[in-house]
Amino acid sequence: MRQDRSQISISTRGGGLYEFTDHVKAFVSHSGIADGLLTVFCRHTSCSLLVQENADPDVQTDLKAFFGKLVPEGMDWIVHTTEGPDDMPAHIKAALTQTALSIPVADGRMVLGTWQGIYLFEHRRAPHERKMVLHILGE
Amino acid sequence: MRQDRSQISISTRGGGLYEFTDHVKAFVSHSGIADGLLTVFCRHTSCSLLVQENADPDVQTDLKAFFGKLVPEGMDWIVHTTEGPDDMPAHIKAALTQTALSIPVADGRMVLGTWQGIYLFEHRRAPHERKMVLHILGE
Amino acid sequence: MRQDRSQISISTRGGGLYEFTDHVKAFVSHSGIADGLLTVFCRHTSCSLLVQENADPDVQTDLKAFFGKLVPEGMDWIVHTTEGPDDMPAHIKAALTQTALSIPVADGRMVLGTWQGIYLFEHRRAPHERKMVLHILGE
Repeated sequence: MRQDRSQISISTRGGGLYEFTDHVKAFVSHSGIADGLLTVFCRHTSCSLLVQENADPDVQTDLKAFFGKLVPEGMDWIVHTTEGPDDMPAHIKAALTQTALSIPVADGRMVLGTWQGIYLFEHRRAPHERKMVLHILGE
Repeated sequence: MRQDRSQISISTRGGGLYEFTDHVKAFVSHSGIADGLLTVFCRHTSCSLLVQENADPDVQTDLKAFFGKLVPEGMDWIVHTTEGPDDMPAHIKAALTQTALSIPVADGRMVLGTWQGIYLFEHRRAPHERKMVLHILGE
Repeated sequence: MRQDRSQISISTRGGGLYEFTDHVKAFVSHSGIADGLLTVFCRHTSCSLLVQENADPDVQTDLKAFFGKLVPEGMDWIVHTTEGPDDMPAHIKAALTQTALSIPVADGRMVLGTWQGIYLFEHRRAPHERKMVLHILGE
């Protein structure tokens, strides 16, 4: 039993979903671990992680739209406004989704379903450099 | 330190919660691993996972109702409509809940609280065969 | 490769976020495991876990307020009312957030980002004693 770890960086240009399944596949493959447990951890609190459908890009459009309607900018009761009108909504959207993903690995591949991809969900408007830690434990 | 892995299948007949705690208990027991980390991973993007109360079935009724009201069918701004009116709401409900569960195992048993059960949360109306991967790592 | 496990208890005094990052740091440090995977598991269904910003306490105020507005007490369609008006909303808020957190550990420290803290999110009004299991696997 052994482990491997890496940090990857994704450049975002505004809110929405950014697929990085291929980055994670490359990490799993490079680790040489065929069977085990993969963890993806997002080191930020205004973006988050999702496993979602990677077939029809409209799904990403609708996910972004839904969260924008559920947690709109300009809610007048918000206290934390110092970092801009999109900051507190970003924290709330992050709380409603995932900070970490756990995915078993079998025969050298993540056990993702046919239509599942791994996404960074950016909730801020301005460009950001987002860091995720990948970790795998197995043999 | 060693690991075990299995895939289980749950047949669903419409939206709602389906408890499968006993399937997971059987897997943990059969693995012979007394102490470690269990992962349950859902291989779909229109159903999801929850650890929730298993005492009063009304809790399940209310959870289904809440998510149905929060993400109703027929939202007129939805673009991804090709797979039916319940498909995009299903993806959104999945994004709001869990794709994977991580549960420590101690003395041969998951450390679930007294009232915690493991549920598949089906978000589609039609019957589906849902596949989950169980993985345990420990000794 | 080895593992360690511990149960910690947090006393809550009404709804809101309770940071316990230092408890988890102490557990990681005491385990002597420098590289691996940490899991925090919440043994309850009416409180939950979040990794969130620990810089400005206003973020916690706004998170509590948002979930209170999204899942208010007194929704007249609720069936599970036997444990009080704040119980079913608590289960729903728990379903919308996390039961478990997975955080890689590197060089003896969790790979949390600069502004990330670990929180128990209490959803009940009455004081509660909340139990979380900490587990670490690595070397």
